[in-house]
Amino acid sequence: MSEVHIHEVGLRDGLQMEREVVPTERKLLWLRRLMASGVGTIQAGSFVHPGKVPQMADTDRLFAALSSGPGRPPGVTLSALVLNEKGLERALASGVDLICAGVSASETHSMKNTGMGIAEATDRIIGVARRAVAEGRRVQLSVQSAFGCGYEGRVPPARVLAIAGRYLEAGMRNVSLADTAGHATPGQVEDLFGALRALDGGLELACHFHNTYGMGLANAYAALRAGVTSFESSVAGMGGCPFTKIAGGNVCTEDLIHMFRRMGMCGAVDIRALIAVAADVAEFFGREMPGTVYRTGIIGEPEVTAA
Amino acid sequence: MSEVHIHEVGLRDGLQMEREVVPTERKLLWLRRLMASGVGTIQAGSFVHPGKVPQMADTDRLFAALSSGPGRPPGVTLSALVLNEKGLERALASGVDLICAGVSASETHSMKNTGMGIAEATDRIIGVARRAVAEGRRVQLSVQSAFGCGYEGRVPPARVLAIAGRYLEAGMRNVSLADTAGHATPGQVEDLFGALRALDGGLELACHFHNTYGMGLANAYAALRAGVTSFESSVAGMGGCPFTKIAGGNVCTEDLIHMFRRMGMCGAVDIRALIAVAADVAEFFGREMPGTVYRTGIIGEPEVTAA
Repeated sequence: MSEVHIHEVGLRDGLQMEREVVPTERKLLWLRRLMASGVGTIQAGSFVHPGKVPQMADTDRLFAALSSGPGRPPGVTLSALVLNEKGLERALASGVDLICAGVSASETHSMKNTGMGIAEATDRIIGVARRAVAEGRRVQLSVQSAFGCGYEGRVPPARVLAIAGRYLEAGMRNVSLADTAGHATPGQVEDLFGALRALDGGLELACHFHNTYGMGLANAYAALRAGVTSFESSVAGMGGCPFTKIAGGNVCTEDLIHMFRRMGMCGAVDIRALIAVAADVAEFFGREMPGTVYRTGIIGEPEVTAA
Repeated sequence: MSEVHIHEVGLRDGLQMEREVVPTERKLLWLRRLMASGVGTIQAGSFVHPGKVPQMADTDRLFAALSSGPGRPPGVTLSALVLNEKGLERALASGVDLICAGVSASETHSMKNTGMGIAEATDRIIGVARRAVAEGRRVQLSVQSAFGCGYEGRVPPARVLAIAGRYLEAGMRNVSLADTAGHATPGQVEDLFGALRALDGGLELACHFHNTYGMGLANAYAALRAGVTSFESSVAGMGGCPFTKIAGGNVCTEDLIHMFRRMGMCGAVDIRALIAVAADVAEFFGREMPGTVYRTGIIGEPEVTAA
């Protein structure tokens, strides 16, 4: 199997669910450790209105510190999520390497998140993406709720492919399918990524799964089988809502890498460094996180158990 | 994809790790509910020496109650694990439909479990299996520690295939590969079951995974892809050791069926009935069990959440 690429999104998708705002210095500590671990791409935050998501209010400061400060190894890509033109301007001013944006394939989810339906949101995001490309930035466009929606239930694959098709028409080459609600099954993942590849076999494909119902690693494996090369995941499995019984967050980075390493991939990643970050995250929030390997230790090396 | 078959092993593999002995009446309650749920095969216990595993001391009584008592729907297969000739005699006297036995592919694990090396244990188990067949019983033979061993680490696939090859020579057609330690990765699962099918394409293949490192459902999906049709799993994800940080038990039955149902399989199983058993198991042990769906509810139907 081909080499895979990990895109750590815990400090964005993981933290935005947490009510307790993590101090900027703590985020920088985690980000620097993540950069040193060998994970290739790290999402530091989201350029959303600070009043809307206070946890993301320091995203500009994080990028300023990471761009000028020590500890950014060569080859590390820093990404950020952008929701609109205003966010894009902040991202462009912050030296983001990879700008991520997306549209939900659920009309209800789209309206709730953006106040726009799918068609309007797609127009808007394509405009943002074109401008980012014109400014010399790498862009990844995602289809959110691509495998199901908490509001609408099943999402027709044709609707996902129509949005992706508009991305391709606009010249975008890096497409992520996001399972925002954790509804995806591995069979569905193989089918939908297969259909996406049939649109254009040369695309750079990324996936983003949540482990809400325990299917996160199964879906990641299915995506690997379907030719996906970039995997979005969250250290410690952050991203679950601690205030509900549905605690599953993003697919856990160190669990995913642990699996991939046993399959001969991700050899350059320092999984112990990731486990140390996960243990620190658990200590910061004062609760057990959804990730597994930071508690069990690595197969054959239980002595590294951090907790 | 073809239809799959669930083999519930929670009352054997799940409970044998628990120090608190479950009263026979409680086991019967769970077994009757499991039988009514539509799960096709249910393992009620193990014919092991009662002094060695007190939790399994009532296996003969369970079978007596299930054979004569009410609530055994047509089509339900009852299985039991047998370790040796003495256990086989008890199983034959108890009216077990499917007799399960196995050999570990780890020399160390085999010695610790049985006092015999692999070669001697294989001879012995094949003798047991032949006698069971001669008595008109169905037999499933497994290779334990087929994907890795807590004592020995990686287990050479050739050793697994050699044991399976001896099963086939003895005329056995139902072979299970068991990931006793939870070390398997989905890539390894596809490879090893693929190699097993290459020995004989007409075998009835079964798998048995533990979720120790979170890879249980991923491995089940890989097994499905590799042509496996029978899946051993444990209600509530029982089987984890509650006294260590490594809490992952067997693959959780209701989580597995939840995934398969979303993929168009297991339509006849009443997943709500399984969730009710899992909730009762959690209540009995007074702790959260490893399973996910009994806590989150079914996708799109969160109101069934049992806890």
